[in-house]
Parts: sequence; C-alpha cells; structure tokens
Amino acid sequence: MNENSEKRSKISEALWIGAGNMGLPMASNLISSNKIRLSVHNRTPGRLAPLEKAGARRSDDLSRSLSETTLVFTMLADDAAVSDVAERPGGILDKLPAGGIHVCMGTLSPTFVDMLSEKHQKKGQILVSAPVFGRPDRAKAGTLTIIAAGPTAALDSVEPLLKTMGSPVFRVGETPSRANTIKILGNFTLGGLLETLAESLTLARKVGVSPSQLVEILDTALYHSPVFRNYGQIMAEEKFEPAGFWMRLGLKDVRMVLREADKLDVPLPLGDILHAGFLAGIHRGYGEWDWAALGRVRDDDAGVSRKS
Amino acid sequence: MNENSEKRSKISEALWIGAGNMGLPMASNLISSNKIRLSVHNRTPGRLAPLEKAGARRSDDLSRSLSETTLVFTMLADDAAVSDVAERPGGILDKLPAGGIHVCMGTLSPTFVDMLSEKHQKKGQILVSAPVFGRPDRAKAGTLTIIAAGPTAALDSVEPLLKTMGSPVFRVGETPSRANTIKILGNFTLGGLLETLAESLTLARKVGVSPSQLVEILDTALYHSPVFRNYGQIMAEEKFEPAGFWMRLGLKDVRMVLREADKLDVPLPLGDILHAGFLAGIHRGYGEWDWAALGRVRDDDAGVSRKS
Repeated sequence: MNENSEKRSKISEALWIGAGNMGLPMASNLISSNKIRLSVHNRTPGRLAPLEKAGARRSDDLSRSLSETTLVFTMLADDAAVSDVAERPGGILDKLPAGGIHVCMGTLSPTFVDMLSEKHQKKGQILVSAPVFGRPDRAKAGTLTIIAAGPTAALDSVEPLLKTMGSPVFRVGETPSRANTIKILGNFTLGGLLETLAESLTLARKVGVSPSQLVEILDTALYHSPVFRNYGQIMAEEKFEPAGFWMRLGLKDVRMVLREADKLDVPLPLGDILHAGFLAGIHRGYGEWDWAALGRVRDDDAGVSRKS
Repeated sequence: MNENSEKRSKISEALWIGAGNMGLPMASNLISSNKIRLSVHNRTPGRLAPLEKAGARRSDDLSRSLSETTLVFTMLADDAAVSDVAERPGGILDKLPAGGIHVCMGTLSPTFVDMLSEKHQKKGQILVSAPVFGRPDRAKAGTLTIIAAGPTAALDSVEPLLKTMGSPVFRVGETPSRANTIKILGNFTLGGLLETLAESLTLARKVGVSPSQLVEILDTALYHSPVFRNYGQIMAEEKFEPAGFWMRLGLKDVRMVLREADKLDVPLPLGDILHAGFLAGIHRGYGEWDWAALGRVRDDDAGVSRKS
C-alpha cells in the first residue's frame, strides 16, 4: 500500500451484471468475501436466486441501480451483449456517475474495448478490462487467472475485489484493450496446439501408431503440460461431446485475432489454417462439438476411417 | 521376469558405434552400469578417450569387432551415417552374426529404418530402433526418454541396457520404424509450438503487449509447461545463439514428416507452413540459429522493427 491508495476512499458497494456459467460463480465468490455489498442484475432474473440467497440485493431497475453506484462489473458473453447494456438509453454509459468504474470481464474484441473505453472517457467514467482464463470449475474455486488493464488508480481500487475471483491478477498496463489482446492470443495459442495435435494424430493413425500412446509419450518426453495431455486425450479418444469449448466459439476467437492482425498488417499463416479448419468443421456439423474436433477435420481430409 | 526371459542367455558384451555429443554420454552411462563389457568405435578415434578411461575397449578394426559381437549400438547423426556403417563391405549387415541385434538410436527417417530392418531380416539379424528425446545434458544425467520398437524378445534383451541411459523406456510395438515416426512427430509438435508462439509474439509486438509478459501469463494461465516457457522466453528475448537446436535441423525433421505424410496421402497444412518458414529463415541467414528464430521470420514479414 502506498500513500495514495491509503487516501483513496474504499469502495463499499458495487453492481454486478451477468449471471451465466461464469458470472454466477464469480459474483458468488465476490459476495462471500464480504469485501463489498453487491447488487446483482441479469437479463433473466430467475438466474439470480443463488446470489440473493448468498446475500446480494437483486437489482430489477438497472437504470436506477447504475445511477446509485460507483462500480459496475459486467461478465457477459460477447461484444454485442456488452454493447447492449452499455450503450442503450438508461445503460452504463448513460447512467453511471462520472468517476465511476466499469470493470468489463468478458472475452471481447480489442477493437470493441478501445471504442468502449473512449466512450467512457467522454463521460468521465473509467473502463477497466479484466478478462479471465479458466472454465466454470475454476471460476467456482476462485482460481481464475485474471488479466487486468486500465488506469492505475482504478486498478488499485478493484484489484482486491478481483482477487476474490482468481489469482494471480496480471496487470498489463493502462490501455484496457491490451488485456483482451492477451486473452484472445491465449485462445489462439490453444488453437495452435489443437492444429499441431490434429496433424500429428492424423499421421499417427495412418502410420499405425497409437494416438493415445503418442500423446502420453510426448507429454512425458517434452511437455509435462496438463493442457497438452487433456486436449491430446480428447482427440485420441474422439470424445468431442460434451464440449468444453464449442468449435463455433473457437472460430469466433480466431476471427478476432485475424481481424486484429489484419488491422496491423500482420500475416498469420497458422491463423488462416485455423480459420479454414474451424469453418470446414462447422460445415461438417461439428460446430457444437469441442473445438478439439479439429482433429476430426484433419482425419476426414486424410481419409482416416472412423471408429463409428 | 517371465519364464522366457529367464531362459534367454544374458548378453555380456556389446559394441558401441558413435561418440558424438549424445553418443559419448550415453555410452558412458552404459559402461558405468557394469551390466556389460563394452567395445567402442568412432570415425574419429580421438573422441573415444573418455570411454576408454571409463573401462571400454577401443575397437579399431570395426569389421572384426562386428564379427565377434552379438549386439551393436549405433548413435549416429542421420540416415547417411547409419547407412555408411551398416551397408558398406565389412559393415554391420556384412559382419554381424545371424541372430545378432542392432540397436539403432539416432533420429532417422521411418522410411530408411523400414529399409534397414528388411535388410537385417534377410541376414537373420534383428533391428531394434530406439531413438531418444533429450539433449546432451539429459543424456549425461541418464534421464533421456527412449522410444523402442522391434521384435519382443530382442526388446526384452536390450531393455535393461537402455534403462541405463534413460527412463522411461516406451515400447511401441514390433515394427522398428514406429519408434522413429514418434520421434519425428515429437519434433514436429515442437515446430507447431514454435509457429504458434512466433505468430502470437509478432502480433503482441505490433500491438504493444510485452512478449515476455505474454509468455509468462499464458504459461501460468494455460500451459504450466517448461518447454512452452523456455521457447517462449528464447523468442521473447530473441536469444537465438547459442542454438539448442539448429533451424537447419528443424527443417530436416519437418521434411521427414512431410515425406512420410505424403507417402500416406496425408495433408499437413501446418507442416507446409513450417517447411516454408524454416526455408525462409535459412535463406535469411538464420540456419545456424536456434529454430525458435522462426519468431524472427514472422517478425520480418510483419515489419516488426528490430532491437539491434
């Protein structure tokens, strides 16, 4: 704690918007930390029951709740959902008082976050972008990895609250969209891992090497990485349902990375392969399978005969 | 131990060919295990001094040594080097007695190993292929990962000797070349990791995200993998010299994988990108840099300005 942060008035209440598979456990951890009093809002109010039970106040009149707070969290699915709640009349930009902070935790495009940040600035509001790595199980356990970017004083204020949802919290500078670039690059690297595994396992199948044994050997010899082993085994066993992460969503994230790259004149040959691979998979009916079904796409194209 | 292996006559002596950066420490561990008496041979006999000091007998007359043994190890650089010592008059195929075992430990092409195996069979000899994962430091420590394939009885005989050089020893069936396919697929996956990191770090540089911080965040959030972190940091810091593994050798391994894939009508879009990327790097003068300099290739093509 430095002198400035000592002087800063402590935030005692906040509004939380979004009670999906991620937002629900994240808000729940924030409530049970007892660090602040939380009001909660969701498009489908029925989803809020467990949060109310945990001690949150339900906000039905979003406009009014926004005008009475200095801190609002959003954990929403995509750019469109955030745009809707932020830009509509009576929404965040309209009603959050000047000096208020919007902590935006979804996986959004850097371009959208840049635009949103500018709009907040014009209203004297502050945008902190804090996307997370981790699935609902880690959200529940409070062990998400959080990437946070925004003005330093605002980050200082919200960091203790973010730490109730995950740790470590990586601070990556003052420009909010930097956090989103890192988040989508993370998903892009997972896509690269999937392509790498897909081509290797397809060749293994054609040669007559056991895909499962290949994954085990390479993880032991080279990777020692749970994510390598996990995706490798999904692909080796072709267990694409239930999906941990839809191929359709993988395509969405790759598109974001490609758009960002093209804006900056950066060629991404692997990105182009992933784009084409996921599109092919979706057209073959794998869109709601786990994105590791990219392995099936490569198998198809190499004439690997199927189990079923 | 089953009944068969109890009955098998124990191997008490062997010949070792190859005293390069890998062969030297591997033979040294085999000698100090005291499991067998070892003769050693190298094209440049001066390299054998430390092995002689450790208790090995120097073999100057290779032909004669081959005719007097039942087990020969080769740890040589490539197909050509093994072909030379195996196929020349007075070489392994010519002189190793029928029933003798050739344990071939280099990183060779599956096609070559299939061909060699067939030639050994015609002579009544047995080929075991046992390529390794790990660099000289792990060879020295006796902690290589070894992939072994060949006839079961021969594998049973040599496995205790292989275990003096590394562990685990993965047995992958009776067809020797399967072990080589796994080895080159392992290197192929590392190439995939390099391409993934290269494109991600290039985009990060253009956006203004710190490459080192990106690697740290993604390893913490997703990978937990020393090899991810290691190659990520080499690329982030652009420390391509001294090379751990030359780009030129990376190209060689990718070519082996592509050839194997083409033989089996398997398209490898990522493989094609790696092939083109390493070639471009070599033509730009990065051939003797670490193959992580693939990151520099992607930076070049995105107009990233250089440190130096």
